[in-house]
Amino acid sequence: MVAIGEREIEDIAAGSAVLGAGGGGSPYIGTLLAKGAIRAYGEVALVDPDDLGPDALALCVCMVGSPTIGVEKLWNGVEGVRALEAFEALLDRPITHVACLEVGGLNSTVPFAMAAGRGLPVVDGDLMGRAFPHIEMCMPTLYGITTSVAVADEKGNSAVIHAVDNYWIERLTRTFTVQVGCQTMAALFPLTASQVREAMVLRTVSQARSLGQRIRTAHEQGLHPVESLVTGLNGTRLFQGKVVDVDRRTEDGWARGAIRVVGLGPHEGREMTIDFQNEYLVARLDGRPVVTVPDLVIVLDSDTGHAITTEELRYGFRVDVIGAPCDPRFRTDAGLALVGPPAFGYPDLPFVGVGEAAACAA
Amino acid sequence: MVAIGEREIEDIAAGSAVLGAGGGGSPYIGTLLAKGAIRAYGEVALVDPDDLGPDALALCVCMVGSPTIGVEKLWNGVEGVRALEAFEALLDRPITHVACLEVGGLNSTVPFAMAAGRGLPVVDGDLMGRAFPHIEMCMPTLYGITTSVAVADEKGNSAVIHAVDNYWIERLTRTFTVQVGCQTMAALFPLTASQVREAMVLRTVSQARSLGQRIRTAHEQGLHPVESLVTGLNGTRLFQGKVVDVDRRTEDGWARGAIRVVGLGPHEGREMTIDFQNEYLVARLDGRPVVTVPDLVIVLDSDTGHAITTEELRYGFRVDVIGAPCDPRFRTDAGLALVGPPAFGYPDLPFVGVGEAAACAA
Repeated sequence: MVAIGEREIEDIAAGSAVLGAGGGGSPYIGTLLAKGAIRAYGEVALVDPDDLGPDALALCVCMVGSPTIGVEKLWNGVEGVRALEAFEALLDRPITHVACLEVGGLNSTVPFAMAAGRGLPVVDGDLMGRAFPHIEMCMPTLYGITTSVAVADEKGNSAVIHAVDNYWIERLTRTFTVQVGCQTMAALFPLTASQVREAMVLRTVSQARSLGQRIRTAHEQGLHPVESLVTGLNGTRLFQGKVVDVDRRTEDGWARGAIRVVGLGPHEGREMTIDFQNEYLVARLDGRPVVTVPDLVIVLDSDTGHAITTEELRYGFRVDVIGAPCDPRFRTDAGLALVGPPAFGYPDLPFVGVGEAAACAA
Repeated sequence: MVAIGEREIEDIAAGSAVLGAGGGGSPYIGTLLAKGAIRAYGEVALVDPDDLGPDALALCVCMVGSPTIGVEKLWNGVEGVRALEAFEALLDRPITHVACLEVGGLNSTVPFAMAAGRGLPVVDGDLMGRAFPHIEMCMPTLYGITTSVAVADEKGNSAVIHAVDNYWIERLTRTFTVQVGCQTMAALFPLTASQVREAMVLRTVSQARSLGQRIRTAHEQGLHPVESLVTGLNGTRLFQGKVVDVDRRTEDGWARGAIRVVGLGPHEGREMTIDFQNEYLVARLDGRPVVTVPDLVIVLDSDTGHAITTEELRYGFRVDVIGAPCDPRFRTDAGLALVGPPAFGYPDLPFVGVGEAAACAA
């Protein structure tokens, strides 16, 4: 068990933005929400999955919607609490832990805000090991675990939705979210201790914290933050360049689009494009796919090493693009059926993992 | 208290289709559902609002969606039960009565199916005194009564929605409904005995039954059914003609469009157009509005006197168009703000009541 205070939240937010592969919402806003709650209610315990007792019951909370909206539209601060409490009313026993649906800038700090307010610990892990744009794109789906969802907006509207499978949960939660203004908080996936240990990606909050520490302290070790992150992620440098085009639209409740990056330094004269749907999906070097979902395509500020989320992208940014492997369970046939390129609207694009793209590193 | 059996259901369905002003779903399907339930579980008591005890609690059930969908897509039969039970779980005491949200072909018979299955009586009344396309367009809204809603589809998806007002209830229920295929059953508006007596349109189920009897028995009294209905509705004959054009689309979860009717007999050489959104909204004679919402525009088969709902309209139908006054509370300023022409997307069209259109009767 580790106590998470304001400083730790900053590292978790910075590292989650990296693991979020461009998605999961603004780390800045997530940090504000979590730090505010910790100041008000005290530090939060981060608990290792192995330390959960047999009666543990963890509930995931997350933001749903297009992170582009979150840049301008404020939370009222109690959406997540209302979602959490509405879900608890469905359960026959109280929840004992809060958990992250995904690791991402906002979605791995918001659970700390909820946990602080309720005096509950957070489980060290998440359901994706990264961020994905759809709710059903998570490890429990691979284990046949379905869920209901409680969802709430900032105006006071809320719903509890029961569905025939996790795909319908995604569809109906998204529809509600789009209708109330493209940004909601949701509570879902109540997991027992054994379900946590089987169907979560374990210790990703600690991993995020460690990546955040790398960004903050790289210079002390005489390293560039990007270099330190590549090592920490067991990743690959894919490209270095300048963003020359951002095509971004809010569509069906997601931030969708593509960016074009022209090469600098070792990649002078070459070009990378990256498609995104909240998260970066497919990186192409001179038109050839070099990394696709479910592996992680990560865009970093070339100076600071901080991850740049899809809603923050702007013309002129100097970036390093790196790739990192996803949880190996997503690379199986069942995993690729759930989160491979065809699940994102690329019916003919085969999965390209970061290992295979190693040849294009500088 | 009156016992409602299969024969009574047929009269109620036929009369409700008249009061439904083109909406409320197919009377044929509603009849099948209610008669099937009555055969299985027995007759249903129809209770006068004055006979409700102080502890009565009535819950409304209705179909939500585009009636055009109901022509092809079957109910599985338990959507309404699931919606009813999901709403009951929110209440601190059991419901004692089932009620109609609106009178309309399907929506005033479906409550009898629910009531039969549960062994509960039905309250004689509804919340609109006709059918309207939006949930919030009901008498309780005028009395400041808000509601949550439980909604269920035929696949097994369901939701309980809480909202800041009845407009958001409509919006979020519609969104869910569109997403699951444009047809759901909903339970909403739990009403106490005093709320029933204040905020319902009273005895409209009996009124529907009486109108249905008029259609069935007019010839025995030497009357044409259309003539008998005009008398029964305190209505006005607006037009007689042949449908020559039907422009109908399923849009945002409603059947929207317009029909064009060329005159026959006394209206030879003239033309009537009628806009609709599930229900008939605005009847124009030679381009001039002669009846608008909230008054009732009713399209009847010129031979049989049976009402023709908006999803059943076809080229070639010989029709009588009649107008009838709505509940007077909808003709107040507050009523017209809720259900007058501007609420249906006609910002500049003033309300035209049937009295004012009397001059155009043949």
